[in-house]
Amino acid sequence: MSKIATAVVSVFLAASAASALGQQAAMDAKMPMPAPVDRAKILVAPGVYGNFSTYRVRPEYYRMALAERKGAAAEVLAVVDKHKDKVIVDAYLTRGFEAQSDLFLRVHSYDMAATQAFLVDFRATRFGMSLEVTENLVGVTKALNYITKDKSPDLNAGLTGATYSGEAPRYALMVPVKKNAEWWNLSDAQRLKEIETHTLPTLVNLVNVKRKLYHSTGIDDTDFITYFETADLVAFNNLMLALAKVPENKYHVRWGSPTVLGTIQSFENVVKVLSGAN
Amino acid sequence: MSKIATAVVSVFLAASAASALGQQAAMDAKMPMPAPVDRAKILVAPGVYGNFSTYRVRPEYYRMALAERKGAAAEVLAVVDKHKDKVIVDAYLTRGFEAQSDLFLRVHSYDMAATQAFLVDFRATRFGMSLEVTENLVGVTKALNYITKDKSPDLNAGLTGATYSGEAPRYALMVPVKKNAEWWNLSDAQRLKEIETHTLPTLVNLVNVKRKLYHSTGIDDTDFITYFETADLVAFNNLMLALAKVPENKYHVRWGSPTVLGTIQSFENVVKVLSGAN
Amino acid sequence: MSKIATAVVSVFLAASAASALGQQAAMDAKMPMPAPVDRAKILVAPGVYGNFSTYRVRPEYYRMALAERKGAAAEVLAVVDKHKDKVIVDAYLTRGFEAQSDLFLRVHSYDMAATQAFLVDFRATRFGMSLEVTENLVGVTKALNYITKDKSPDLNAGLTGATYSGEAPRYALMVPVKKNAEWWNLSDAQRLKEIETHTLPTLVNLVNVKRKLYHSTGIDDTDFITYFETADLVAFNNLMLALAKVPENKYHVRWGSPTVLGTIQSFENVVKVLSGAN
Amino acid sequence: MSKIATAVVSVFLAASAASALGQQAAMDAKMPMPAPVDRAKILVAPGVYGNFSTYRVRPEYYRMALAERKGAAAEVLAVVDKHKDKVIVDAYLTRGFEAQSDLFLRVHSYDMAATQAFLVDFRATRFGMSLEVTENLVGVTKALNYITKDKSPDLNAGLTGATYSGEAPRYALMVPVKKNAEWWNLSDAQRLKEIETHTLPTLVNLVNVKRKLYHSTGIDDTDFITYFETADLVAFNNLMLALAKVPENKYHVRWGSPTVLGTIQSFENVVKVLSGAN
Amino acid sequence: MSKIATAVVSVFLAASAASALGQQAAMDAKMPMPAPVDRAKILVAPGVYGNFSTYRVRPEYYRMALAERKGAAAEVLAVVDKHKDKVIVDAYLTRGFEAQSDLFLRVHSYDMAATQAFLVDFRATRFGMSLEVTENLVGVTKALNYITKDKSPDLNAGLTGATYSGEAPRYALMVPVKKNAEWWNLSDAQRLKEIETHTLPTLVNLVNVKRKLYHSTGIDDTDFITYFETADLVAFNNLMLALAKVPENKYHVRWGSPTVLGTIQSFENVVKVLSGAN
Repeated sequence: MSKIATAVVSVFLAASAASALGQQAAMDAKMPMPAPVDRAKILVAPGVYGNFSTYRVRPEYYRMALAERKGAAAEVLAVVDKHKDKVIVDAYLTRGFEAQSDLFLRVHSYDMAATQAFLVDFRATRFGMSLEVTENLVGVTKALNYITKDKSPDLNAGLTGATYSGEAPRYALMVPVKKNAEWWNLSDAQRLKEIETHTLPTLVNLVNVKRKLYHSTGIDDTDFITYFETADLVAFNNLMLALAKVPENKYHVRWGSPTVLGTIQSFENVVKVLSGAN
Repeated sequence: MSKIATAVVSVFLAASAASALGQQAAMDAKMPMPAPVDRAKILVAPGVYGNFSTYRVRPEYYRMALAERKGAAAEVLAVVDKHKDKVIVDAYLTRGFEAQSDLFLRVHSYDMAATQAFLVDFRATRFGMSLEVTENLVGVTKALNYITKDKSPDLNAGLTGATYSGEAPRYALMVPVKKNAEWWNLSDAQRLKEIETHTLPTLVNLVNVKRKLYHSTGIDDTDFITYFETADLVAFNNLMLALAKVPENKYHVRWGSPTVLGTIQSFENVVKVLSGAN
Repeated sequence: MSKIATAVVSVFLAASAASALGQQAAMDAKMPMPAPVDRAKILVAPGVYGNFSTYRVRPEYYRMALAERKGAAAEVLAVVDKHKDKVIVDAYLTRGFEAQSDLFLRVHSYDMAATQAFLVDFRATRFGMSLEVTENLVGVTKALNYITKDKSPDLNAGLTGATYSGEAPRYALMVPVKKNAEWWNLSDAQRLKEIETHTLPTLVNLVNVKRKLYHSTGIDDTDFITYFETADLVAFNNLMLALAKVPENKYHVRWGSPTVLGTIQSFENVVKVLSGAN
Repeated sequence: MSKIATAVVSVFLAASAASALGQQAAMDAKMPMPAPVDRAKILVAPGVYGNFSTYRVRPEYYRMALAERKGAAAEVLAVVDKHKDKVIVDAYLTRGFEAQSDLFLRVHSYDMAATQAFLVDFRATRFGMSLEVTENLVGVTKALNYITKDKSPDLNAGLTGATYSGEAPRYALMVPVKKNAEWWNLSDAQRLKEIETHTLPTLVNLVNVKRKLYHSTGIDDTDFITYFETADLVAFNNLMLALAKVPENKYHVRWGSPTVLGTIQSFENVVKVLSGAN
Repeated sequence: MSKIATAVVSVFLAASAASALGQQAAMDAKMPMPAPVDRAKILVAPGVYGNFSTYRVRPEYYRMALAERKGAAAEVLAVVDKHKDKVIVDAYLTRGFEAQSDLFLRVHSYDMAATQAFLVDFRATRFGMSLEVTENLVGVTKALNYITKDKSPDLNAGLTGATYSGEAPRYALMVPVKKNAEWWNLSDAQRLKEIETHTLPTLVNLVNVKRKLYHSTGIDDTDFITYFETADLVAFNNLMLALAKVPENKYHVRWGSPTVLGTIQSFENVVKVLSGAN
C-alpha cells in the first residue's frame, strides 16, 4: 500500500472526529430555543458564529420627516425582540471615528442562518432600508489553539489569571487579521513559538483591554476577526505597538483595513442618535 | 529544418485535437434543445459554462409599492421558465453575510451566449432592473487534469470513493482562485506533486463539503472559480485551513476577494425575501 | 568630443526617421476622406488608433418611456453614419458577462481626434447620455516588432501561414497587458527570445482564435491592448493557459484587469437589447 | 520557574505604570470642564486625542436655496460653541487642491467620546447633513519617544532651540504614516539611530514649517498622523525630499494616501465659501 | 562638540539659503498684480504652482434645459477673466479618451491660494456645480536639478539646443511619477547618472514632444507631475518606450495612474462641447 494510499485511509478515519464541533453547532441549530439566548454563555462558547457589519446612513434618510425617524428605534427593537431566542445583538456608534460607517453591529448565534434571518428583518425596517452596508465579516469561535494548558502552561496560566480591572469599557474595536502562506506553511511548533512571543507582551494589557477571537479562514476574506473593548485607548495603542514589535507581524497581509472603532451604546441609542431623535 | 520550424509544424498537427472539447460545446450549442436542461447531467459534464453573478438591490426598489414588489418573483420565474431548455439557475441569499451583495446566481449552460440571453431577460424584469451587478465571473468545466486514474491512482480512488454524507447543504460558497506566473511555469510533474499535496488533506472533508471547479484563465480575471456546498461551516473552515497549510498556497495571488457566502434557497424565495414579500 | 556628446548628435540624426510612422498617420489625418473608411484596409494598417470603451447603462434609462427608448438605436446609427468617413465602430454586448459593463465599443480611425469627435457625438444621444463610462483604453497599431521575416523567419512563416478556419466568431475579448521595468530593461535579443517562446505554443490556436495588437505605452496606463475573436471559448482558455506557462508571464504586472468578454453583435442590436426594444 | 513564567510575572508588575498616561486621559475625561478648552495647553499636552476628517459637499446642497445656505455657518458655529468646553476645532478649505474633499477638520479633546459628540452634532446641521465623509483618522499625542534629552541630547537641543520664524502659516497638510513589520521589529537602539538620521536634515526646516505628531497604531489603519503648517510650500517640499532621502523611508508602507492640503481659514469662512455665501 | 551637534549648527546656517526659492514665490504672491499674468513668463519661471484637475460631468447636467447650458461657457469665461491677474488656465477635452474624466484643467499661479480662489469660483458656476472632481494634483516648478550646465554639460547643450519643430500640438498628456525609497536613498551622483541615461534617448523626441516638469513630493501623493504636448502620438509612444527601457524605470512606483490624455482646446470650446452647445 503506497504512502499516499495509507494517508487517504487515515484521513477518512479522522473525518468524523474532525467535524464534531461543526456537528454540535448544527445540532444546536435544529433544537428549538424558545428562551432568549443566554448572553453569558454564548459569549464564551466555541462553535458560535460572530457577524460584524458596518453601515452608513444614506442621505435620503434625513429627508424623511423627523416624526417618522423618531419611530425608527422602536421598530428596530421589535426586530431584536422577535429574534431574541436565536441571536444577541451589540451595537456601536462609529460616526465621527470612521469615514466608511456610522454604526457597527456584532451579532452572535449558534446558527449562521439565524443571524441572516435577523439581519434580513433589520434591513426591512425603515432605518435598515436607509442603510448602505459597507463591511460584513463572519467568523466562528473555537477552543484555544496554541496557548493551551498542555502546549504552553505558563502563558496559559497568565492568560487565565489575568482579569480586566479597568473602568467599564466605553470603546469597542474590530480588527480583521489575515496571514500569508508562509505563516500557514510553518510547522505547528513554529507557529506555537511565534504565538508565545506574541502573547507574552500582551498579558500586561489584559487588565485594561478585553479581547475575543473569531476564526474566518475560507468563510470570509480574512483569517481572524479580533474584537476588543477598553476604556483606555492609550493602553490599547500600547498593546497594538507591542504586537507590532514581534516577528509574527511579518506574516500579516491584513491587520485592520478596516480597523473599526466605535463607542459602546445600546442599539436603541445608536438608532436614536443617527435619527436625530435623541 | 530548424527546431522551431519543427515545433511550428507539430503544433499545427495538434490543433484539431486540442480544441475538440470546445467544438463539442459549440455543436451542443447549435443543436435544438426543446426539452429542459437535464440538471443531473449538466452538473457533471465537461464543457459546461458556469456564470456566477452577485447583485445588490438598489434602494429605489423599496420605494416601489409593496403590491408591485409582490409580483416580482412570478415575473422572474417566468423568465427562468422561458430559458429552461438552455440554462439552469441556482440562487442564493447573501444579504447579512456580504457587504457587496444581497443575492448571488449560478447559471449553467452548454453555450455561454444562452446564459447571456437569460441574464439579459432577467435584468429586464422589474426586480432585475432594480439590481446593481457587483461581481460577474465566468468559467467552464473540464475533465480532471491532475488527480486522474493514470497520474495519481490512489488519490483518484480517494476522490472517487468519497461520498458526501452530511445533512442537506444549507450554505454555498464561491471562491475565485488565481495563481502566479511561477506556478504556471512549473513543470507538469511539479504541479501534479503540489496538487497531490493539496488533495490529500481535503479528502477528509468530502464527507461534509461538496466541491465543483470551473476554469477561467483568459476568459475572466481569475484562473479558477471554486464552488462549495455544506451544512457545516466549521468543517469548511477546517478544510480551507488545511489548504492554507500546503505549499501550493504560496502560489496564490487571489484566493477569495470576494469569498461569497449565501444560503441555498429557491430563486422564488430569494426574490420574495428581498422584495419584503415573504 | 565626449561619448555622451556623440550620442546626442546621433539621436538627432535619427529623429526624422524615428517618427516617420507618426507623420504618416498625421498626414492621413489631414487628408479629406469623403468616402467611408475602408474596413478591410484600416484593420490591417499600422498607425491606426484603436479606442476601447466600456459602458454601464444608468438605472435612470429604464425610467424613460419604452417608446422613447425604441428610438435610441436609430439615433445612435445616425451618429455612426455622420462619422463614417473617419471612423469605424464595432459593438459588443457584455451584460451578463461583466459586472462593470453592459456594452463595449471598439473604434478605429487614422486620427485620434476623429475618434473623440465620434464618441462626443455618441455620448450626446439619449442612449449615450444614459451611460456611465467604466473603462477607456487607447492604443495604436504598429508593424510587427519581434517575429519578423528577418529576426525569426520560421515563426514568422508560422504566423503568416496560419489561417482562422473555425466558425464565424461569436465572442470578442479585450485584454490589457502591462509589463514591468525588468522586461523593458532586457536587451532586444532577450525580449525576442521570450517572444519566440511565447509565440510558439500560440500558433496552434490561430485556427480558432483571431488576434489583434495595439500599443499603448505612455498614451494610457497599459503597454498593450490585445483583442481576440473566437467561436470557441475553450480553445481560447487553452491559448491563454499556454501563454501563462511561458517565462514572459513573469514580467506581467497587468494581464486583464479588466478582461472584457462580449458577444459580437451589430451596434443596432446592442442598443436595442439594452433598451428593452428588441 | 521558567523563563516565560518570570516574564509573565514581570509584565504584570509593569502593568500599572504602562497605562498611566491612559489613566490620566481617562481622569481628565471625567472631570467637569465648564470653561472653554485652553487652546494653548491642549495643543502641547500628551494624552490628547486628535481627529482628522475630510468631507465632500454633496451636489444636492447646491439645489438648496441660497438663503438657506447662508444660514449654514451660524448653525455650525452654534455647535462649536455648544461643545467649546470639551473640544477645539480647526477648519481648512481643501477644494481646488483635493479631489476627495472640499474641507478638512481637525478636532482636539481630552476624551475621544467628546469629539464624537461634537461631530455627531455637526453632522446634524443642514451643512453637515450635506457632507460625505471621505476620510477619518484618529490619533493621540504622546511624550517624545526617541529624540529625548537623555537618548539624543544634541538633536533634542536642536529641536528645542528651533523656532518657527516664517510668516503666519497659510497652509496645513495632514500626512498619515504607516511603517512595516521590519521597522517595528528593529531594536529600540536601531530605531533611535534611524530617527536621528531622519531628524537631522529636518532641523533646517523648523524655521518655516510647524509640525505635530499623533500616534494611531491599532486605533486606526495608520501608525502616525503627521500635521504641518507653513507659509512656504517650497520649503515644505524640500523638507519632505530630505525625509525621502534617509533610510527610514524604506520602512514606509504608507506615507500620504491621502496627503491632504488645505488653506488655514476660520470654520465660519470655510462653511461660507462652500455655501456660496461669502 | 559631537558630530551631530556640528551638523545641527550647519543645517541652521543653511536654512535661509535653502528656502530662498520659496521666499521668492511668497514675495511674488504678496505683490499686487493688476495686469494679466504674463503667460510666456509664468510658463518658464521657477516657483510657479501648477494645479492639474480632472472632472466628470454629472448626468444631472444634461437634464438642465439646453438654453441654460448654452450660457455655461460665458459664465466660466467671466470667472477666468476675474482671476486673470493671478492665474492662467489651460483646458483640455478628455471625453472619449478617459473613463474617469470629461475635461482636464491646468492652472498656473505664483501663489497656490490664488489658484484655489479661482477654482472655488469656477466650481460655483452652473457648469462647475455639475462637475465631479476625479483627480487633483498640485506641484511647483523648480530650476533644473540634474542636467545642468555644470553637472552634465553635453546633455544640457542637447536639451538647450533641441527645438520643437513639429506641427502645432493637438494633444496634451499629464503623467504623475512617484519613485521608491531606494531611488531617493541613492547618492546624488548615482541619481545624476541614472537621469543622464534617462535623458539621452529622449533628446530625439524634443523635436516633436514638448515637456514640462512639476515637483510634488510631500505636497501631494506623487513626486512629479510630467506634462507633455504633441501632434504626434506615435512619437510620444516611442519616447515613453525609450524611457521604459532605462534602469531608472525600476525605481518607479507610479508612472501614470492616471495617464490623462486630452485634446488641446480653448476653455470656451471645452465647456460648449460638454454642454451640447457647440
